Amino acid sequence: MERGAAAPKLQFAPFCSALEAGFWHQLTQKKLNDFRLDESPKNIKGYYYNGDPVGLPTRLTLEFSAFDVDGATPARCCPASGTLYNTNTLEAFKTTDKKALLDKAANEIWSVIQSGAVLEDSSILNKFILLTFADLKKYHFYYWFCFPALCFLEGVQLVQEPVSLEQSFSAKQISCLQTAYDNLCVSSGTTAVPHFLLKYTEESVEVAPLKDLTSFFPDLKKITVGVYDPCTLPQHPGWPLRNFLILLAKKWYVCNELFQHASHWSLPDQNPIVSFSPRCVGWEKNAKGAMGPRSVNLSECMDPKRLAESSVDLNLKLMRWRLVPSLDLDKVVSTRCLLLGAGTLGCNVARTLMGWGVRHITFVDNAKISYSNPVRQPLYEFEDCLSGGKAKALAAVDRLKKIFPGVNAEGYNMSIPMPGHPVNFSELTMAQARQDVEQLEKLISEHDVVFLLMDTRESRWLPTVIAASQRKLIVNAALGFDTFVVMRHGLKKPKESQSEESSPMSASSSSSSSLFSNIPGHRLGCYFCNDVVAPGDSTRDRTLDQQCTVSRPGLAMIAGALAVELMISVLQHPEEGYAVASSSDDRMNEPPTSLGLVPHQIRGFLSRFDNVLPASLAFDKCTACSPIVLDNYEREGFQFLAKVFNSSHSFLEDLTGLTLLHQETQAAEVSDEVYLHPCF
Amino acid sequence: MERGAAAPKLQFAPFCSALEAGFWHQLTQKKLNDFRLDESPKNIKGYYYNGDPVGLPTRLTLEFSAFDVDGATPARCCPASGTLYNTNTLEAFKTTDKKALLDKAANEIWSVIQSGAVLEDSSILNKFILLTFADLKKYHFYYWFCFPALCFLEGVQLVQEPVSLEQSFSAKQISCLQTAYDNLCVSSGTTAVPHFLLKYTEESVEVAPLKDLTSFFPDLKKITVGVYDPCTLPQHPGWPLRNFLILLAKKWYVCNELFQHASHWSLPDQNPIVSFSPRCVGWEKNAKGAMGPRSVNLSECMDPKRLAESSVDLNLKLMRWRLVPSLDLDKVVSTRCLLLGAGTLGCNVARTLMGWGVRHITFVDNAKISYSNPVRQPLYEFEDCLSGGKAKALAAVDRLKKIFPGVNAEGYNMSIPMPGHPVNFSELTMAQARQDVEQLEKLISEHDVVFLLMDTRESRWLPTVIAASQRKLIVNAALGFDTFVVMRHGLKKPKESQSEESSPMSASSSSSSSLFSNIPGHRLGCYFCNDVVAPGDSTRDRTLDQQCTVSRPGLAMIAGALAVELMISVLQHPEEGYAVASSSDDRMNEPPTSLGLVPHQIRGFLSRFDNVLPASLAFDKCTACSPIVLDNYEREGFQFLAKVFNSSHSFLEDLTGLTLLHQETQAAEVSDEVYLHPCF
Repeated sequence: MERGAAAPKLQFAPFCSALEAGFWHQLTQKKLNDFRLDESPKNIKGYYYNGDPVGLPTRLTLEFSAFDVDGATPARCCPASGTLYNTNTLEAFKTTDKKALLDKAANEIWSVIQSGAVLEDSSILNKFILLTFADLKKYHFYYWFCFPALCFLEGVQLVQEPVSLEQSFSAKQISCLQTAYDNLCVSSGTTAVPHFLLKYTEESVEVAPLKDLTSFFPDLKKITVGVYDPCTLPQHPGWPLRNFLILLAKKWYVCNELFQHASHWSLPDQNPIVSFSPRCVGWEKNAKGAMGPRSVNLSECMDPKRLAESSVDLNLKLMRWRLVPSLDLDKVVSTRCLLLGAGTLGCNVARTLMGWGVRHITFVDNAKISYSNPVRQPLYEFEDCLSGGKAKALAAVDRLKKIFPGVNAEGYNMSIPMPGHPVNFSELTMAQARQDVEQLEKLISEHDVVFLLMDTRESRWLPTVIAASQRKLIVNAALGFDTFVVMRHGLKKPKESQSEESSPMSASSSSSSSLFSNIPGHRLGCYFCNDVVAPGDSTRDRTLDQQCTVSRPGLAMIAGALAVELMISVLQHPEEGYAVASSSDDRMNEPPTSLGLVPHQIRGFLSRFDNVLPASLAFDKCTACSPIVLDNYEREGFQFLAKVFNSSHSFLEDLTGLTLLHQETQAAEVSDEVYLHPCF
Repeated sequence: MERGAAAPKLQFAPFCSALEAGFWHQLTQKKLNDFRLDESPKNIKGYYYNGDPVGLPTRLTLEFSAFDVDGATPARCCPASGTLYNTNTLEAFKTTDKKALLDKAANEIWSVIQSGAVLEDSSILNKFILLTFADLKKYHFYYWFCFPALCFLEGVQLVQEPVSLEQSFSAKQISCLQTAYDNLCVSSGTTAVPHFLLKYTEESVEVAPLKDLTSFFPDLKKITVGVYDPCTLPQHPGWPLRNFLILLAKKWYVCNELFQHASHWSLPDQNPIVSFSPRCVGWEKNAKGAMGPRSVNLSECMDPKRLAESSVDLNLKLMRWRLVPSLDLDKVVSTRCLLLGAGTLGCNVARTLMGWGVRHITFVDNAKISYSNPVRQPLYEFEDCLSGGKAKALAAVDRLKKIFPGVNAEGYNMSIPMPGHPVNFSELTMAQARQDVEQLEKLISEHDVVFLLMDTRESRWLPTVIAASQRKLIVNAALGFDTFVVMRHGLKKPKESQSEESSPMSASSSSSSSLFSNIPGHRLGCYFCNDVVAPGDSTRDRTLDQQCTVSRPGLAMIAGALAVELMISVLQHPEEGYAVASSSDDRMNEPPTSLGLVPHQIRGFLSRFDNVLPASLAFDKCTACSPIVLDNYEREGFQFLAKVFNSSHSFLEDLTGLTLLHQETQAAEVSDEVYLHPCF
């Protein structure tokens, strides 16, 4: 048949990509947890529907299920499989060779048409491409959708105006068609068959899959086909017809009737195709109608708190993907941290923990926020100081929640009983001390790491004893004017295995190998191991500057940050708190973890911008972690502690043997200050 | 005269100390600015008044003028001088030997009575003691007031009931007395004379100072005295009478009439004193009526914003008093800091500056706060991320004011034009770039120190050029994953003096002495001096992790704190930015300032908990601070800058001679990556 010049060209209504918020959310999750920095193509799945009312655009929908390519498709919707190209950068998104992607898809379609494989599964004719860049910091998504369509060289001319199904078919035929189609879907195991074969009489309609062509149309003289068409326009077919027309033209060079299931129009008997090449089109226009990508900003429509959570996770995961693949983030995030002290150090430690994604943070402090605090204690503001000042432990919790609503923070406005601070004034103070001890024991048992961040030495004694007894990791930080110490306490072996171990060595009897280096975590000292006097009341009779622990303002930020980084490094070590302590000498060696060294102590000197990493052994006469102190505590409990609180130095010194040691050293006429214990 | 057993004892109404808020405020100022940790006794001044209505307690008032001992006393009030013992600790306050203080004062009084010196100035009889402890962190003041009174061994018996002045004197006599007393005050040069001599007839009243005793009472037979008595009770004298009675008894053993000016009662002719010893009393009872100190909490009644200011100053001043007496705090506090970048580094730098008392902080940033920011950028909270996110530069200012209302903070939500980021798309973008440059030039000129805290290399170029031209100190901080560099840029000599100096040396021609050590500040390199390529567009085509500068969360806190501490140390050096750079080797030497070293660069390695302090020379082909770049900028201004923004790397490389250098080094077949410049 000759082409009539007047015959109008067949025009196809393009797909409008409908990418739902659920799709972007799922893409975010996939990128964070699976794809990471992998840019290789991914299989995804969308669907379209042929039952929309007139006026709606022809949509190809992708939602949260898009990545579950083997999952269910909504009822009566036709699945379409696609390929996702998610780039890591906006620049890569922009510079991706879109023509190459399209050509590749078109060639795949063309090859299955040529090979006939398409008859087995014509859904490949609906294969789409999605190019994306997900800016997860801003929840801004850039995308470009493509439904590749092979093109006839000169277009398809309409020989006859399209007629609707209602015009061609009787109600009975339509009903028969629907039943037959539904059965076809069931037998094909799909929610909708995109293209099919069709035979009809006045009384009946039969359908068959494309692969049954020769049996269904034995003479191949007149072939009628049906297409599941999502387009709602009466005069135009949707894009699923385009590649199918190419298949028909290529395969048979005839196309007696093209039939759209469920409505609208039919092609003329004779399709005037003359020639074609697999030229292809398909990249969707943007909202302005021009060629170009689209973008969507979901930062406002997503739940802000969940947005915050996934955004916070992102930085950490990026760190892992790119820089430290072995990083066990789950261990970090799930670590329960108890911060004893919510002052300058406590605030900085809490902030660094938040940066690491730690979710479970508990504060203990008995102080109120004073006017001098906010400029140095980064969880408090001027307003917190009014009316006498809020309790630090509670205000710190409020602030953490304001910073990150997903945090699981608690605060306890309570005192920590201390040696040399008597509690035996009355029944009431005794009962209060007992209650404080019990609360502290409970808190330590409920956490994984205990941070000692107080401003007195003796307030560190009780938690040192309790945590040593409970075998909890302690990270301790203390400030001078321009010096600091950040250390992990030695972590005693579990009680059941202790009998196999020798007790902590006294310095004099320690084996030579472990005096200065290679000290395993269970033999490391605590904060009190280097002392030869028991902790007492150090707040009494100190001038103001000592009480408020005046230090260079940068010092607490550095020490707080290092305390957390030390904890992270230790937790990432396979032996955790039992890891052999790194020393300054180990700086030249291969680090024990991907994050680096796991020192016992970091002693910093701001005036020299220098840190050294001493390591020291547990001291068998330590007033806090020695076996005799732990034994007494574990046997007598509060009775023992009360004796310590109410006594002078000498009680603990007598108990541990320090008194005797003092006498011996005096007897030996050692005149200088005696440091029995190797330390920095 | 015999003592009558029935005669009642004379009872004195004690002083009630009235310490006004103004006194405590002034004490605070004195302690912060003058006394500091000095606990030595201080002279202070109070006053009392004899005209109060009946019912008011007998008050000795101390207000803001108390420390101005030579200053005016309110009209008609009687001054009383005292001694302030202000302790540094609550413990010292409690343990001060109050009996000793009282005895000391009593002995002074006794000795001037015995010597007769008291007749010259009887105000010493009203000498009081004030013991205080000022807890300036909480604005809690503890005090104990003492009005020392020598005691008669057995008390003073009243021979006759007291009568009021109105009962003894006629209206005319009273009027005469008032006139005479007023004249005495004028001639004595005081607002009120505490004790005086008195003669009267029916028609006249005469008064005279104590020292005129022998001329006023030639026969010494009957002496009448007057006392300026603050007590409002009709039956009792106030305490100013007590020591005066001792004087009278000691000096004359007779006391014909004791007279209270302006009211109430008179003693009998014969005072039944028999014997006395200088036993003394005087410590005030507390509010419960028991012996003990009083305290007052002024934190709520003082202006909270002023409270915050003085509290913040306190820590800094304590640091100076006790630890670094040479610290020039005024220089720190008055330093105007421009922070380019209000992200992770900018927030931490701002917080450390606040801790140091820096009051003038300006932010420049063009980013908005995203959900991942608050856990790492300690000036932002979750709420700041909603609705697309607040502008960082503005939100940072809001937060600083919430932390410390006294801060003088400003924010500029603007972009910094960058090399390789063309601005010649249109007249509009060109005009915007010009405006941004002018704004940045103005901001840099209005500040003393410029912090470079951005997350790209090329955004540091323009401020480096402008600040180098303006001779402003630059402190630069940049982060890797677990490494950082904090550095001060070399500070060029002032333009007028530059001709005397040789231009920056090229590395190859530098004198041997200054290659690695002893480099003076004006010959130190900038951030770009170590580079052999010009800055370009580094944000294009980077994956997300590079863009968001993923780093260990503690790193920015450490680097931000060190950037500020470096600035402080440099500013405290007498040569400031021209100070010779300290290096790691100098750690063993005497530091150049009381705060320590003034390195050129601090390069930190968190995995090793280590810092090194390299120093490097300015590079004569530097793309930012070399003479040819500064010359072009100073001559052509924006014209030159626009060329840099719009050009590729080669423009700056051609200009500085780097291109030629590249060709030469290639020609020399140097195959490794070439670092022409000595650096870490």
